[in-house]
Amino acid sequence: MGRPEFTIEPTKAKSMASSSSLTLTQLLPSLLTSAQTLARPPISNFHVAAVGLTQSGRILIGVNVEFQGVPLHHSIHAEQFLLTNLFLNKETNLHSFAVSAAPCGHCRQFFQELRGAQDIQIIVTSEPDPKFTKLSQFLPFRFGPLDLLPQQASLFLEPRNNGLTLLKLPNEGFNGESIHEKLQIAALEAANNSHAPYSDSPSGVAILDCGGNIYKGSYVESAAFNPSLGPLQAAVVAFIVGGGGEYDEFVGVVLVEKDGAKVKQEATVRLLLEAIAPNCYFHAFLSSI
Amino acid sequence: MGRPEFTIEPTKAKSMASSSSLTLTQLLPSLLTSAQTLARPPISNFHVAAVGLTQSGRILIGVNVEFQGVPLHHSIHAEQFLLTNLFLNKETNLHSFAVSAAPCGHCRQFFQELRGAQDIQIIVTSEPDPKFTKLSQFLPFRFGPLDLLPQQASLFLEPRNNGLTLLKLPNEGFNGESIHEKLQIAALEAANNSHAPYSDSPSGVAILDCGGNIYKGSYVESAAFNPSLGPLQAAVVAFIVGGGGEYDEFVGVVLVEKDGAKVKQEATVRLLLEAIAPNCYFHAFLSSI
Ligand SMILES: [Zn+2]
Ligand SMILES: [Zn+2]
Repeated sequence: MGRPEFTIEPTKAKSMASSSSLTLTQLLPSLLTSAQTLARPPISNFHVAAVGLTQSGRILIGVNVEFQGVPLHHSIHAEQFLLTNLFLNKETNLHSFAVSAAPCGHCRQFFQELRGAQDIQIIVTSEPDPKFTKLSQFLPFRFGPLDLLPQQASLFLEPRNNGLTLLKLPNEGFNGESIHEKLQIAALEAANNSHAPYSDSPSGVAILDCGGNIYKGSYVESAAFNPSLGPLQAAVVAFIVGGGGEYDEFVGVVLVEKDGAKVKQEATVRLLLEAIAPNCYFHAFLSSI
Repeated sequence: MGRPEFTIEPTKAKSMASSSSLTLTQLLPSLLTSAQTLARPPISNFHVAAVGLTQSGRILIGVNVEFQGVPLHHSIHAEQFLLTNLFLNKETNLHSFAVSAAPCGHCRQFFQELRGAQDIQIIVTSEPDPKFTKLSQFLPFRFGPLDLLPQQASLFLEPRNNGLTLLKLPNEGFNGESIHEKLQIAALEAANNSHAPYSDSPSGVAILDCGGNIYKGSYVESAAFNPSLGPLQAAVVAFIVGGGGEYDEFVGVVLVEKDGAKVKQEATVRLLLEAIAPNCYFHAFLSSI
């Protein structure tokens, strides 16, 4: 079995489309069935895939991920996975996507964190007569970031650096070269890329797996609060996209969050890790600006 | 200062409307401004109120509640508060409501747990030209309970008894008369009224406050998982509706949840209590059918 593919590069996407005499957008629905097999829904057994096309012609895949033993607010929806996959690929725009079931309200809300969200074209293949429809028609009278933030505020997927540094300076002898130092630096980088303008509580997680790979996850806030994506969830997406298997492959996890923040992730990251990777070590570090 | 009013009985509602020469639905928007003062949003400082009219002519109020120090998925939206208030009043239908800001996608999704949700009439007073509009126009192409459950399944606010009993029988000498025994029975009752058809993991919480009052909260699941309302959140709504003040008035909290359930609330209830009521005792009990 090959490594599951969550990213299709523009040249490959183009050749797949032309060999089926399809446009790139027409290609998207045809990729759903195989993508659905990548979902991890141990509670619902309801496999959802979202296959998106970026402005740069890349095709990216998202699937739903559920975690047994913890409340359902820990779940990652296929559309949130897809947007995290865009972030991992440094893509700043989603042109269109196909999805195997109607996007739920939580996801329609999460999309609002993107500039120009209203214009994303969506095709829901479970509808009786599927056709591409603008996101604005899925969430009319929207509540979004610009109801709370200034017009020029940086939104999700736009360049950002929160300027955080670790509060407790690394030990003498810290040269960033050991794997544990690299993990700490990765979590700090993830926190610096975190989109958390509503609570001003950026955070980031880095996972080290048994193959020595490091996966970063940046916390993403929603203007509507509850649909926010936790930093461990974002790192789990990076782990899965990077070819990770079971969560017991986690060796260590580091969280960096802001000192004195209104939203604290530490206890919640620990709670989820205890459910999915109880043998993995976990360290949390505070940062300041 | 009088006790904040979250319930207006039908006769009073009728006389308030007629003394202003308004219909009951026209009365709803006029009640928002005073209701907004009851909100508890320490993170966003964004006060939201939702004022609803039931089929029986009762007017019920909901406000948003946020908890500092924990992730944003713990937040209770005004619309979720309103629906929990319906549950507390044994109302089974929401006719219409006025709300001070456009309902977010998370709430539009949560409403889907009600039978006939599509027909609820909503007026958003922050819109340029507010007028009553059906919920179906706020969440077209909806994903809802009947995408996952059989047609005849019991939905939220409909009669339900999960038939749970405590796994560990109470001690000899248990006669249900002491306050702690009453708290345990209240949590079991709340678990028996919990709407959790997707994970089959019903749960309930009971809070004892320093005035000797007991407040019950039943966990409510959403077909879309993440918008689910936790059992402690539901009990906090009951506490606020019942006139409760600060959370340090909590003396004890009991959780009852199902043995071997796929969704476990215990660690999460403890985490939130440590943030808002660190001196309160907390016991969790398992139940079975
Ligand atoms: Zn969703
Ligand atoms: Zn909401």
